[in-house]
Amino acid sequence: MIEVPVVIIGAGLVGASIGCALTREGTKVHLQDRERSHAVVAASRGGGVVDDPDPESVGLVVVAIPPEAIPTVVNQSLEKYPYATVTDVGSVKGQIVEDLILNNVGLARYVGSHPMAGSHLTGPITANADLFLDRTWVIAASEETSADSVELVRQLATSCGSRIIEMSIDEHDEAVAQVSHVPQIMSSLTAAHLRQIPKEHLLLAGQGIRDVTRIAGSDPELWQQIITANCSAIRKELEGVRKDLDLVLSALDDPDLLEDFLADGRDWARSLPGKHGLDRADYEIVIVQIPDEPGSLARLFKAIEDAGVNVEDVSIEHDPQRTVGFLSIQVESDTAETLRRAISANGWSLRT
Amino acid sequence: MIEVPVVIIGAGLVGASIGCALTREGTKVHLQDRERSHAVVAASRGGGVVDDPDPESVGLVVVAIPPEAIPTVVNQSLEKYPYATVTDVGSVKGQIVEDLILNNVGLARYVGSHPMAGSHLTGPITANADLFLDRTWVIAASEETSADSVELVRQLATSCGSRIIEMSIDEHDEAVAQVSHVPQIMSSLTAAHLRQIPKEHLLLAGQGIRDVTRIAGSDPELWQQIITANCSAIRKELEGVRKDLDLVLSALDDPDLLEDFLADGRDWARSLPGKHGLDRADYEIVIVQIPDEPGSLARLFKAIEDAGVNVEDVSIEHDPQRTVGFLSIQVESDTAETLRRAISANGWSLRT
Repeated sequence: MIEVPVVIIGAGLVGASIGCALTREGTKVHLQDRERSHAVVAASRGGGVVDDPDPESVGLVVVAIPPEAIPTVVNQSLEKYPYATVTDVGSVKGQIVEDLILNNVGLARYVGSHPMAGSHLTGPITANADLFLDRTWVIAASEETSADSVELVRQLATSCGSRIIEMSIDEHDEAVAQVSHVPQIMSSLTAAHLRQIPKEHLLLAGQGIRDVTRIAGSDPELWQQIITANCSAIRKELEGVRKDLDLVLSALDDPDLLEDFLADGRDWARSLPGKHGLDRADYEIVIVQIPDEPGSLARLFKAIEDAGVNVEDVSIEHDPQRTVGFLSIQVESDTAETLRRAISANGWSLRT
Repeated sequence: MIEVPVVIIGAGLVGASIGCALTREGTKVHLQDRERSHAVVAASRGGGVVDDPDPESVGLVVVAIPPEAIPTVVNQSLEKYPYATVTDVGSVKGQIVEDLILNNVGLARYVGSHPMAGSHLTGPITANADLFLDRTWVIAASEETSADSVELVRQLATSCGSRIIEMSIDEHDEAVAQVSHVPQIMSSLTAAHLRQIPKEHLLLAGQGIRDVTRIAGSDPELWQQIITANCSAIRKELEGVRKDLDLVLSALDDPDLLEDFLADGRDWARSLPGKHGLDRADYEIVIVQIPDEPGSLARLFKAIEDAGVNVEDVSIEHDPQRTVGFLSIQVESDTAETLRRAISANGWSLRT
């Protein structure tokens, strides 16, 4: 539990949820938001109190606002709260540090936080003390950051139930460029390419392009801010992608080279860690044919429940044109056989 | 119903499923496969009989084999079965026609078919007479193709329960390059880029990159064959993507340009037709928090069943590290409110 008073600036989903987690532990949390009503809603969800405490009493400031405004507010907070550690929860850190250096503000009390809780939800009404439970929380400190400040932010992450990974500022920004910002841009490139094709060709679109372009459906303003803030790390990665694209273009006449490249892609796609940190190999997918009518899923899940099998993931094969669907059920491998037997015994048609 | 005897060459999932659909209607189907055991399994699933009929009696030949071998087998079939219409179910057509022209074989009896039934399942054991029910089946004929041959392939698609779209050979190959082959390559590019990054950075991977790279996990040999067969159409599209990538690289210093591009991506990602041909706007997503334990999904679906709501799609927010999950339930918009009430009334925590 954090013993010092905490100010949270920005009472959106992330800020309000951190407030809820800290308040639940007994920490005194002060909520602030440019839109006071957001802070009030966050307070009503158990995120803290809406007020402006004595700045000298504050031990920790959490800046949870849109990316564009973070450097300025971190700067202001270090000035306004003379004894507080200041952390932000944005997804890019280098720009903040550059801004602090540019303004001759010491880095001793600044620590970058990046709680990895992606959600398409926004706003304090969906605040949830468990939003960061079991999530990765990256702590990115500079060499000048004091050990006390880092320790306080470790306590913050621990209070939210997160798992801590510590990285340097540069390494953090490079890592998110690689695993988040570049994939986002690849999704947008795939989707934006559709503007150049006859509209009737979209009728031939299947599930593949839907998956690839799903995240391209995100808020362009938010992503513009994130990408702009991390543009140098992203540029380096995109130049690598550009080289690979040239490689693929030349491999269009070289089947062996093309197949090697596609095999690399397959291997790396499969190397992404699965749910709960387990390898994908620990899971198996069981596929069942389902009639697309009310109640069919309920009967199926009842059968699964009776078999005592824990469903890790479930998805219906999306399909633009048909009414008969297949349900993919992901379970831990050692329960797959039990699941298959339960499904068959209940007269469902299994596809494996 | 097709009145003439049909030969299906290749008794994998697609060939065997077509056999099942035709046999169910009473058509005489002869199954052939380089691996005789596949044809035998397909026959045991109701796909036809395993034999080699009098070639002069055959009215329709369906070539359902891996892409690489299609041109040769189409060619041989036109020769072996002198009165038969020959169609293939591969995803690229231009190469087949080029090969026929090169070999001075007339195009009168060749029709390209492309039943759009993506599945990660393979082999005749999963054959299913309804595999193509309500799916799009593209018919791509040349100008030389006889009207009778086209009509026979229309009957084939109709017997399988599919919806027919007719296109020229070139237009078909261009369309699949745009909505299928290029997205596949973009997914592989995103995944293959991971080979250039430190492995520990993968710990920061979230759901976004998983979605973008899902199809990169497909069989590289199959995709090498498809891409090689359609390389000229793909090259043209990839060069367009390359221009867009350069645009993004230059937009890294130009927030307005970047945001415009991302907004284009968002708009086109959302323009992809949804399930059952309805617009995405006709659906709403209701999000529920679920404990990740046996039976919780069953109780939830029971509540949904009792409310009489038809679930269009369902997915668990994948999440590598946490045990509390959210279930996204997609329903037609006019039933969303009923669903929300049912969920709340059952004590579930709703997130919208």
